[in-house]
Amino acid sequence: MHTQTQSLAPTRGGERPAGQYGHFSPDGREYIITNPRTPRPWSNIIANERFGLAVAQSGSGFTWIDNSQLAVITRWNQDLNQDTSGKFLYVRDLDSGEVWSLSPAPMWREFDQYRCRHGLGYTTFETSLHGIDAEWTLFCHATEPIELWRVRLVNNSGRPRRLAVVGYLEWCCGVSPSPRREFHKLFIHTAFDAQRQCVVANNRMWDVSSSDYGHWNTTFPYSSAFGGTLPVDAAEGDQLGFLGRYGHLREPAALNGAEWAGKFGQHEDAIAALRSIVTLKAGEARDFGYGLAVSDSDPNAVSLLGAFRDTHAIDKALDEAKAAWVKRLADHNVETPDASVNHLTNDWLRYQAISGRIWGRCGYYQQSGAFGFRDQLQDSQVWLTIDPQRCRNQINLHAQHQFADGSVYHWWHPLSEQGLITRMTDDLLWLGFVTANYIKETGDVSVLDDRQPFLDDEKATPIIDHVTRAFERVFKRTSPR
Amino acid sequence: MHTQTQSLAPTRGGERPAGQYGHFSPDGREYIITNPRTPRPWSNIIANERFGLAVAQSGSGFTWIDNSQLAVITRWNQDLNQDTSGKFLYVRDLDSGEVWSLSPAPMWREFDQYRCRHGLGYTTFETSLHGIDAEWTLFCHATEPIELWRVRLVNNSGRPRRLAVVGYLEWCCGVSPSPRREFHKLFIHTAFDAQRQCVVANNRMWDVSSSDYGHWNTTFPYSSAFGGTLPVDAAEGDQLGFLGRYGHLREPAALNGAEWAGKFGQHEDAIAALRSIVTLKAGEARDFGYGLAVSDSDPNAVSLLGAFRDTHAIDKALDEAKAAWVKRLADHNVETPDASVNHLTNDWLRYQAISGRIWGRCGYYQQSGAFGFRDQLQDSQVWLTIDPQRCRNQINLHAQHQFADGSVYHWWHPLSEQGLITRMTDDLLWLGFVTANYIKETGDVSVLDDRQPFLDDEKATPIIDHVTRAFERVFKRTSPR
Repeated sequence: MHTQTQSLAPTRGGERPAGQYGHFSPDGREYIITNPRTPRPWSNIIANERFGLAVAQSGSGFTWIDNSQLAVITRWNQDLNQDTSGKFLYVRDLDSGEVWSLSPAPMWREFDQYRCRHGLGYTTFETSLHGIDAEWTLFCHATEPIELWRVRLVNNSGRPRRLAVVGYLEWCCGVSPSPRREFHKLFIHTAFDAQRQCVVANNRMWDVSSSDYGHWNTTFPYSSAFGGTLPVDAAEGDQLGFLGRYGHLREPAALNGAEWAGKFGQHEDAIAALRSIVTLKAGEARDFGYGLAVSDSDPNAVSLLGAFRDTHAIDKALDEAKAAWVKRLADHNVETPDASVNHLTNDWLRYQAISGRIWGRCGYYQQSGAFGFRDQLQDSQVWLTIDPQRCRNQINLHAQHQFADGSVYHWWHPLSEQGLITRMTDDLLWLGFVTANYIKETGDVSVLDDRQPFLDDEKATPIIDHVTRAFERVFKRTSPR
Repeated sequence: MHTQTQSLAPTRGGERPAGQYGHFSPDGREYIITNPRTPRPWSNIIANERFGLAVAQSGSGFTWIDNSQLAVITRWNQDLNQDTSGKFLYVRDLDSGEVWSLSPAPMWREFDQYRCRHGLGYTTFETSLHGIDAEWTLFCHATEPIELWRVRLVNNSGRPRRLAVVGYLEWCCGVSPSPRREFHKLFIHTAFDAQRQCVVANNRMWDVSSSDYGHWNTTFPYSSAFGGTLPVDAAEGDQLGFLGRYGHLREPAALNGAEWAGKFGQHEDAIAALRSIVTLKAGEARDFGYGLAVSDSDPNAVSLLGAFRDTHAIDKALDEAKAAWVKRLADHNVETPDASVNHLTNDWLRYQAISGRIWGRCGYYQQSGAFGFRDQLQDSQVWLTIDPQRCRNQINLHAQHQFADGSVYHWWHPLSEQGLITRMTDDLLWLGFVTANYIKETGDVSVLDDRQPFLDDEKATPIIDHVTRAFERVFKRTSPR
C-alpha cells in the first residue's frame, strides 16, 4: 500500500491564533475550518470497524463498507482541485427560487457564515445563507454499518419560509473508481420503497478478480438503503433526470423547477435524490435526519435504516459515536506545556491511526482498502496502550498473509484476498518488530504460540516460526559483503 | 471485447427533413447536428492507423496513440450525462470580459448559431456568439501521429474586437481512465518551450502490467507536444492555476482576469493552456491552428509539430485527410432508391468499421484499445472490396493470438499483449469464417499457406492448421447429443 494522506490536516495548534483557514477548538477536540477554500481538501476519515465515510471541508466524499476501494457505496470522483463529488444536501426556497447546498460543494455559493468542524467521529457543517442557519452533521454509527446525518435548520430571516430540502447521492455499489463508468452503471439496480420512504440499491456486477468470488462478473454482496426522517415529497433515481441533459451538480435542473420523473430500476445513471418540504415560521427551528444503511440484503438494509428513522435515535447514535472515541482515547495521555502537541498526540494522531488507517484504510488522496503488510502492522501499535489484544489480532492477521518460504504480500485486499508479491525487504521485518513491541508492552510472550497457517501451507504454525522464517528470508538476501 | 457503440449516430436519412437534432448534408458525407443537447453524446471516432481522437457534438473527447485505453494522450472523464471533459478552445473578449467556448462544452453557453458537422475524417464546430462567427475543425493527419485544429474567427459585430483565444487540454499520457488520478498525476512532466512556443509532456510512470514492459512502474514510451500557429501570450501547465481552487471548466479563473502563474514541471495537475491574442477589425477574418503531436521523444514530438506551424500546412493536411477517406471508400458502392441507405452503406458504415473499430478500436461508450478476436476479424471484412491484403493481415495477426491447442484470446491489448482467456466458442469460428470469405472474394488460396506462430509454440504454422485446430477444439465441446 502506498502512503496514505492524513485524515485531517490542521495547520496551527490549539491555543494559538486562528490560521488563515481554521484552528483547533479550545478543548482541541475539533478542528474548525472557517475558509472553505483550503489549499487542498482537508478531510475527515470517519470509520467504525467495518464501515466509514470520507468527508472534506467542501462536503465532498464517499461511503464504503469493508473495503474503501472494492466495496464503495457512493460514487466519488477523486479530484483534489475541483473536489465537487459526493453526497450532498441541497435547499431550494420555494418562494424565491434561491438554491444552495449545506456544504460548499457542490454549488460553491458564498455563505454569509461557514464553519466545518472536523471532530473525533463526526464532521459538522455550519452555514448561513438567505436567512437560514443550517447545521449538518455526518457520522457513522459506533458499531453498525450505517451513516447518519443530523440536520437542523433555523429560520432567522424574520419571515415565514417554505423550503425544499434534497438529500443527494450517486450509487457506486462496487469498485471505485469505476473503471468504465458507463458500462458498470448498467448493472446497478435501484428502487424507491414508497411505504418505507427510502431508496434501495444493489449491483448485479462486481468487478473484483478473486479466487474466492470467481469470475469478475459476480453480484455485489451488499445492499444499501437511503432515507430520511421527513416525508418524501418526490424521489429521483436517475442522474440524467436530476441534472438535466449535459447538466451539472452545481446547477441541477431538478432544483430549478423541472419535473421529477422519478425513474428507478436498471440502466439509468443511478442516484438517490429525496425531496422533502420544510416550512418554518420566523424564528422556528426544525431537526431532521438521513441514514445510509448497508447490509447483506435489501430487507436487512431497509430494516437497519428503519431503526434510525427518528431524530432521537440519530441524536442518541451521535452521542454514542462521540463517547466511544472519547473513551477509546481517554487513557495514557501525555501532558506537555504545548497544547497542540497534547491534542495531536492524545487525540488526533491516535484517531487517525485507528479510524483512517486501521479501520478505514483510506485517505482522500488514496482510496486503498488494502492492508499493507508494513503499514497496518506498524499502525496497530497504537493499540498497545489502548487495547493490546487488537494489536495481537493484527499480528495474527498478517501472519496469515505470509508464504511458507517467509515472504509476504506487500499488500492484500480484504474481500478479494488479492495480494501483491514484491521483493521489498522491509515488509519482512515488521512482523518480528511489532511482535517484539507487543511483548515489551504487555509482557505476554504467549503471542509467540498463536498459530496461523501460511498462504500456501494450511498447517497452523506458531507466530515465532512465522517471524523466524521472515528473518531467515531477509538474511538470505545479504550479499557476501 | 464488449460491444462498441457506433462512432456516429444519425437518426434520419439524407434527403429527408431534418430531425430534431440534426440531418445528413445533401451529399450524405456529413452528419450535421443543429441541437447540441442530443439525447446522448453523438461522437465521431477519427483515426489513422496508429493515432486518433474521439469528439462528440459537445466538443468533449480525447486523443490516443496505438491503444485508445493504454496510451491515452489527453485526459477524458467518461460521463455520458455531463459530457464536459476534453480538449477545448475558449475565447475571452478583452474589452467586455465575455467568455465562451467554441464548442458547447465546457461552458454550455447558448449560441446564436450552432452546427456540429461530423465528416469522414474530421469534425467541424460552427458557432456564433457575441458577434463572432467561429469555425473549428478537428482532424488527425492521414498518416502521421498528429491531431490538427483549423480555426477561423470572423468579426461580424461591426466594431473592432480584441480577443484572447485559449487552447486547453489535460494530459493523461498513459492509461485511461486513470485509476488513481491524484497518484498518477505526480509522474507527468511538462515544460513550456518558449522558443518553439509549445508545451511538451511525458510520463515517468505507466500503469501497464505486461511481460514485455515488466513492472507496471515503467516510463510511458511516448512524448507529446501541443502548440499553435499564433504567438503565445501566456501559457499555463497547472490545472489548479487555470481553474482556480475548487474551480471548474465551466468558469476557469484564468479567463476571468486572474494572473497566469505559468507553472510547469512535475507534481502539478498537468494541463496545457496556451493564450493568444487575436485582434479583428469589423468584418475581418483570421485563420489559425493548433497541433498535438506524439512521438517517441520530446525532440521528435516537437519536430513533428513544427511541420504544421502554419495554416497552409494544416489546410493541406486537412485536404489530404478528407481525400484519403473519399478515395478509400470510392469503389464498390451500392446505388438504391433510398439515399440514406446509400450514404450508410457506402460511406458511414465502412468509415466506422475502419476508423472506429479496426484502427481506433474505440467508442465513446467504450475506450477499449484491444483487438477482439471476434470483433476485429469480423470487421476486417470491410477491406475485402477495398484492400483485401489488409483483411489478410488481420487474419495473420489473429492467428498469432491463438494457442497451440486451438483456443484463442477473447481479446488482447496491443502494446501490453495482455489477453483474456475465456471459454467462448464463437471466438474460435471466426478465423475460419473470415479466411473462407477472403478466399471467396479474392480467389487467392495462398492465404492458407501464410505461416504464423502460436502464443505458446513459436513454430511458424500455416493458417490452414490454425483454422483446423480452432474447429477441432469447437467439435470437442459438443455433447453426446
